[in-house]
Amino acid sequence: MNAVDIIRAKRGGGELSDEQIDWVVDGYTRGVVADEQMAALAMAIALRGMTGREVARWTLAMIASGERLDLSTVDRPTVDKHSTGGVGDKITLALTPLVAACGAAVPQLSGRGLGHTGGTLDKLESVPGFRTELSNQEFLGQLRGVGAAICAAGAGLAPADRKLYALRDVTGTVDSIPLIASSIMSKKIAEGTGALVLDVKVGSGAFMTSVQPARELATTMVELGAAHGVRTVAVLTGMQSPLGRAVGNAVEVAEAVEVLAGGGPPDVVELTLALAREMLALAGLPGVDPAAALRDGRAMDAWRALVRAQGGDPDAPLPQAPETEVIRSTSDGYLSDVDAYQIGVAAWLLGAGRARKEDPVSAGAGVLLHRLPGNPVRAGDPLLELRADKPDRIPAARTAAERALTLGAQPPAPRPLVLDRVGGSGE
Amino acid sequence: MNAVDIIRAKRGGGELSDEQIDWVVDGYTRGVVADEQMAALAMAIALRGMTGREVARWTLAMIASGERLDLSTVDRPTVDKHSTGGVGDKITLALTPLVAACGAAVPQLSGRGLGHTGGTLDKLESVPGFRTELSNQEFLGQLRGVGAAICAAGAGLAPADRKLYALRDVTGTVDSIPLIASSIMSKKIAEGTGALVLDVKVGSGAFMTSVQPARELATTMVELGAAHGVRTVAVLTGMQSPLGRAVGNAVEVAEAVEVLAGGGPPDVVELTLALAREMLALAGLPGVDPAAALRDGRAMDAWRALVRAQGGDPDAPLPQAPETEVIRSTSDGYLSDVDAYQIGVAAWLLGAGRARKEDPVSAGAGVLLHRLPGNPVRAGDPLLELRADKPDRIPAARTAAERALTLGAQPPAPRPLVLDRVGGSGE
Repeated sequence: MNAVDIIRAKRGGGELSDEQIDWVVDGYTRGVVADEQMAALAMAIALRGMTGREVARWTLAMIASGERLDLSTVDRPTVDKHSTGGVGDKITLALTPLVAACGAAVPQLSGRGLGHTGGTLDKLESVPGFRTELSNQEFLGQLRGVGAAICAAGAGLAPADRKLYALRDVTGTVDSIPLIASSIMSKKIAEGTGALVLDVKVGSGAFMTSVQPARELATTMVELGAAHGVRTVAVLTGMQSPLGRAVGNAVEVAEAVEVLAGGGPPDVVELTLALAREMLALAGLPGVDPAAALRDGRAMDAWRALVRAQGGDPDAPLPQAPETEVIRSTSDGYLSDVDAYQIGVAAWLLGAGRARKEDPVSAGAGVLLHRLPGNPVRAGDPLLELRADKPDRIPAARTAAERALTLGAQPPAPRPLVLDRVGGSGE
Repeated sequence: MNAVDIIRAKRGGGELSDEQIDWVVDGYTRGVVADEQMAALAMAIALRGMTGREVARWTLAMIASGERLDLSTVDRPTVDKHSTGGVGDKITLALTPLVAACGAAVPQLSGRGLGHTGGTLDKLESVPGFRTELSNQEFLGQLRGVGAAICAAGAGLAPADRKLYALRDVTGTVDSIPLIASSIMSKKIAEGTGALVLDVKVGSGAFMTSVQPARELATTMVELGAAHGVRTVAVLTGMQSPLGRAVGNAVEVAEAVEVLAGGGPPDVVELTLALAREMLALAGLPGVDPAAALRDGRAMDAWRALVRAQGGDPDAPLPQAPETEVIRSTSDGYLSDVDAYQIGVAAWLLGAGRARKEDPVSAGAGVLLHRLPGNPVRAGDPLLELRADKPDRIPAARTAAERALTLGAQPPAPRPLVLDRVGGSGE
């Protein structure tokens, strides 16, 4: 078998055999298949696609490139959640301890932000002392004790995906449904979770800007989960405007803590509860009401336990960026739209995100919405606030943020948060 | 400007700007654009294509990556020939001295064989003492004196193409019309020739197995020549069966010498004269009759001068491979077909070609046809002969050679050698 024949087969629109897929993924992991060969193959896959069988085998080959965690010593049912990434998407922060407080264990291996979407690990690192690198032993111990851990995936998990992800990033092959689906699912299956809820974001602030490809991605991932024994449900949710009021790192942690305290913006609460119900149903705990765990403080207790277990201080004040600027309404009317993509870019320009994997992020920088889409406004009302560590970060971000705002004479039609659902029987 | 944006633009089927093409070709030559990025871009080009403007600019950028030879000190008109590669294609060997004998200068920069098609430099190196590496000064001096040189392109000529060609070889992106056309034409334009005749091969033994893509490639190259001030004509010629009787290295040199001596197989003589007439017309010498130069020994004199100028001994015996095996006819009838591709594979398996660029080739190995397509045969007649340095090379080659042969009860329809012609005014 050789790489050129495999590349040429996919270039010609052919279907790769199981043996070809196993060979090329293993060869790439070991360095026998060169980066330039995998880059050409990834481009051919991006343009020619893959059948369901090919994606399933590719995923299996990436799982087989490393270790697969065994969570059988955790005595609770395990269920995880993955979001394809959005602006202001801090759902994992409150959802993970909430579901743990309801009796499941959540083995949450998360990532960092790149471009205009933030990463859960970056957000958590704004909590003083919080460690995102755990050994497998620490991870397992925490699942047994606290019932939840949120940390970086270890180097032993799906190393083929780690290598391929970095390659796709520099070769224009990130947004390909078979490559995205196999990347996400290989990591989630290798982490050993028994069940998985996928939050597939749709809209200007997401990878997928329309429902059709998002549904295709969701279906591919749900089928991959089923093929590998992980009960999987996907929920398609809107990402036209940011989730909640806060976009950044520390500001998003603060908003998640509000939710855990029983408050928080309505959309964040609604999505947190909807995903928690999906997770609990998949974990075999369909009768448990997550709203009660928010009200009575059990979710907050689980959060504090999780933060402490990972070295953080839940009572320490969060970092605040010293430079702020408020953007105000220029007219009376309604705030018809706050574009998620532009707000993501603004937060990124303020220092909350990174352009390259190596870049540091600012803990305190970000955007705070003072008004939400649909709210009535008067000329002079504060619409949003920019926060940065240095004043020179403000002007470019201000331009992006202003571009995000649309004012109108009439209130906009309400947008549903949950657009569709793929997989599961709804039990 | 950055590589990912350029890759993504082509991936999406967009047209690259002049600035993008210049930037990415220059960046790749200097190592700023990584191999994996160029591999992804090459695959996107192979699948999405390029407009005429894009190919022209890509070619210009590859020329600009290195030096461009100045042949203005050569006092004869310069004209070169390039073949896209076939089986038994030794035309350059006799054609180059023939055209020089007719008054033009032929600056022939050639390549080596890879896979089932041979390379002119490999063939010439079977002549004892022949040197294929010349300095620019030696090359120019020989064009002024002998009127012809056949040597390897120097490292300074289109280095971007040299790097890209090696990359395409390992990434399944060799057979792409814009990439082939720009590769060939960047080298030919950089070598400084004033005119160029392209022999675009069509058939089982060629890159292009049907006329339509061959015509497209020919048209692209003729337009590129015109855009860069090189008068260019392309001739599409059949490569369904090998050219002549000999396929290998020394055996092809011997056949070319037969042609120079006024003999040789009819198809080789016909194609040599047809291409010589095209070259002489483009060089402004339309009244010169190349057939006379074959008959009266002037072409042979030019060959001997060329061989001597490059260190070779035109009188030394050529290497012969010690192991031979004859394949005979199993029935009476006609030899209806000798498949060029299978004969190319047989010669390659015998040691005449290489699988990797680093491999050595055997000077004496090859295939000799004792009967040509259309010849009547009787059971027991020798059809072809295999030659190799070692007996273990024979069995696999025999299988390929037998597969090449088709016997029939009726003589096959004659096949035209020249299928089409692109460019020029026929003056």
